[in-house]
Amino acid sequence: MKKEPLLILKIGGQLLEDSAALGTLLDQVANYAGAKLLVHGGGKKATALAEKMGIEVQMLEGRRVTDEASLELATMVYAGWYSKNLVAQLQARGEMALGLCGADLNLIQTQKRAPLPIDFGWVGDIKHIATATLQQLLQLGICPVFSAITHDAQGQLLNTNADTIATALAIALAPHYAVDLRYCLELPGVLTDINQPSSLLPHLDTIDYQRLRNQGQISGGMIPKLDNAFSARQHAVERVVIGNPQSLFNQSATQIC
Amino acid sequence: MKKEPLLILKIGGQLLEDSAALGTLLDQVANYAGAKLLVHGGGKKATALAEKMGIEVQMLEGRRVTDEASLELATMVYAGWYSKNLVAQLQARGEMALGLCGADLNLIQTQKRAPLPIDFGWVGDIKHIATATLQQLLQLGICPVFSAITHDAQGQLLNTNADTIATALAIALAPHYAVDLRYCLELPGVLTDINQPSSLLPHLDTIDYQRLRNQGQISGGMIPKLDNAFSARQHAVERVVIGNPQSLFNQSATQIC
Repeated sequence: MKKEPLLILKIGGQLLEDSAALGTLLDQVANYAGAKLLVHGGGKKATALAEKMGIEVQMLEGRRVTDEASLELATMVYAGWYSKNLVAQLQARGEMALGLCGADLNLIQTQKRAPLPIDFGWVGDIKHIATATLQQLLQLGICPVFSAITHDAQGQLLNTNADTIATALAIALAPHYAVDLRYCLELPGVLTDINQPSSLLPHLDTIDYQRLRNQGQISGGMIPKLDNAFSARQHAVERVVIGNPQSLFNQSATQIC
Repeated sequence: MKKEPLLILKIGGQLLEDSAALGTLLDQVANYAGAKLLVHGGGKKATALAEKMGIEVQMLEGRRVTDEASLELATMVYAGWYSKNLVAQLQARGEMALGLCGADLNLIQTQKRAPLPIDFGWVGDIKHIATATLQQLLQLGICPVFSAITHDAQGQLLNTNADTIATALAIALAPHYAVDLRYCLELPGVLTDINQPSSLLPHLDTIDYQRLRNQGQISGGMIPKLDNAFSARQHAVERVVIGNPQSLFNQSATQIC
């Protein structure tokens, strides 16, 4: 039996602050033929708010260290402001959106990361996804909107990377849906020269990825993103695309092979 | 056919900051035999956060005026921090909790209150409750946790009083459930002398309410609360109780007749 298509769209960062670009993207989501699920972060707003409130943001290896105050901020910004605004915007487009964090319906259970070698604070690594519950929601025509907050099932909320959540959900649902995983960023796709839009790769396979990485042409924040993307492909996710609101739905983004 | 019991518990204010009292209350919720649904505000934290960020909180007739910054704060605090913490705490007690605002699944649609005679800003009055969707959630064994944020179905989030939401949900579900509506506050119940715990009324009917109100023995914030409570009773809500975490589940609170 042919599997039903399921769009899993990861959005984050600057896009959540750009209502015109976000609106265009959500129009495309609403027009998508098939089930859909969104995952979002909201890091920049949390950082700005932390500054406003005099809370210091600590970064280690490009990732936020989540102390008590940062977890509270992240929960407010991701699971509160962005989640409910995305839901309201999707509802206005006729989508049965439902804003969720991992604690809701026990959908994503994580465990606090060990404090060694680096203590990232209240950060959770994924332990279990309630795939059957998720399928039930999708079958009811619901469009889940996940924020990057999870829980340990013992009452503690935890911060979990949004790319990681999107990838894990895609892999969990891949046996049941033809999953179409799209990571939306500011760049139109994977570039070998960040200053040259013409260096965009229409396709990227693992061999080229290794080579470009060794040559230093792919670096920084793109590496964990691409590691997630290739992991999804290796776990039966049918389609994985990296791009921005302009490229992601018109075949001009980077497809991961 | 005998209707299934449904607990609708409104909690708010100081209680959300008192983890011991909240824990006791959530234990009682988990022990309740029947379906359950929570409604919460979070006003005090939003006020404290506003002060920290230099946002002025304007009150008119005891109700918050919701400007753009206040709506953002309320959405972050109510639908983010408190909602997801309550969900995590309930999940830790084995409840299939789901944090919701009115925009989620289009459950509570409101319309922005007319700016005359008083402009309350981004405040929504209830227009429609998706009762059938709510029933579906309850039948799946889900415990909905509503924050006091709604939407206009055109993309705009709105602030709606949590007592009003609890009352409206109770009335909407009364034809389908034996609704047991409990408002949790700091006082053990309705007192005729706020400094005398012994003045607690075990029962209150409309005739006594009118008399005590005329005599000034019931006043202030208790009046809109009791108006909601009597409205629920007049619309087929089986049981309405007002009390605090200690009195609410042990027959020592005020029952509205």
